[in-house]
Amino acid sequence: MYEGPVQDLIDELGRLPGVGPKSAQRIAFHLLAAEPADVTRLQESLQKVKEGVVFCDVCGNVSAETTCRICGDSRRDPAVVCVVEEPKDVLAVERTREFKGRYHVLGGALDPLSGVGPDQLRVRELMARIGSDGITEVIIATDPNTEGEATATYLVRMLRDFPGLNVTRLASGLPMGGDLEFADELTLTRALSGRRAV
Amino acid sequence: MYEGPVQDLIDELGRLPGVGPKSAQRIAFHLLAAEPADVTRLQESLQKVKEGVVFCDVCGNVSAETTCRICGDSRRDPAVVCVVEEPKDVLAVERTREFKGRYHVLGGALDPLSGVGPDQLRVRELMARIGSDGITEVIIATDPNTEGEATATYLVRMLRDFPGLNVTRLASGLPMGGDLEFADELTLTRALSGRRAV
Repeated sequence: MYEGPVQDLIDELGRLPGVGPKSAQRIAFHLLAAEPADVTRLQESLQKVKEGVVFCDVCGNVSAETTCRICGDSRRDPAVVCVVEEPKDVLAVERTREFKGRYHVLGGALDPLSGVGPDQLRVRELMARIGSDGITEVIIATDPNTEGEATATYLVRMLRDFPGLNVTRLASGLPMGGDLEFADELTLTRALSGRRAV
Repeated sequence: MYEGPVQDLIDELGRLPGVGPKSAQRIAFHLLAAEPADVTRLQESLQKVKEGVVFCDVCGNVSAETTCRICGDSRRDPAVVCVVEEPKDVLAVERTREFKGRYHVLGGALDPLSGVGPDQLRVRELMARIGSDGITEVIIATDPNTEGEATATYLVRMLRDFPGLNVTRLASGLPMGGDLEFADELTLTRALSGRRAV
């Protein structure tokens, strides 16, 4: 296609998720025309991430320090822990501004076909936390898909043994702003079985 | 949002064209989990592009050497030159496998509102080439939009003064595989006025 360094850059960019050949080309030519300082900034942020990102010792979220901002915040309730799959899920829950507890990031969901078992997730760390930290409620907030449901079921089984611990799960049901008519069968089934008295 | 280096990387990626906040986040977490060698390869290709990409002295296309593969290929007809806006247009014409001449890359199109006049494009280089290289035909293949049309009109006026030089323009008309019913008025007008005897 192109010759030399430009094609190398297009190839490398094309390996990134969600970047097709056309986008890779567009980004490469953008970088070609960009100020060297802009390219340097991108290089430096890649370098820092490569040198190792810090994860919070407590919750496993990406962090600037060994204890993340949320785990270090004394105004957040340490007795309630929301268990999510990925750091981006923490962000999603934080955006609601409704949750005042802390988090536990598993680092994925159970997926035996891809070789992800409980040992690949931060399950042991969760058990240790619950055993020692005075936690009274664990909210399981894994994704509402096959892997997330399997992970939730597994966690519920593991957490049953802790006396006095409330284990809850995010409600399934109709998404707000949606149309009942367009809801899939599974969502509608969940919405029906989870119906509440008003 | 996130803390530290991860957010920096997301911010930098989000500045790239066509990369929204969600894609930037996805790419950043992909790079976080990627092999360090993969990140290094991306960094190195950025470095090479920043250190300066070589452009062909003759046609202005991106190149590995000071003369690009096409300009250095003696089997390509040096008498026919296809004038395009950008390196990616060379690629588009090459994909047809129909053109056996050479190229001239302008480096953009006339766009006075963005401060792009003839001096910002490689117009002077084109005139010098035509004056000395024994070129018999110039095919103007700028984009079929306002800037491309303006550039074509300007080039036609400049090239009129060369005696014995054929100046041609890519045909405008209905795109193949399209529906007449969905063609816009301008395209259909061009297709009508450019109709050919069969």
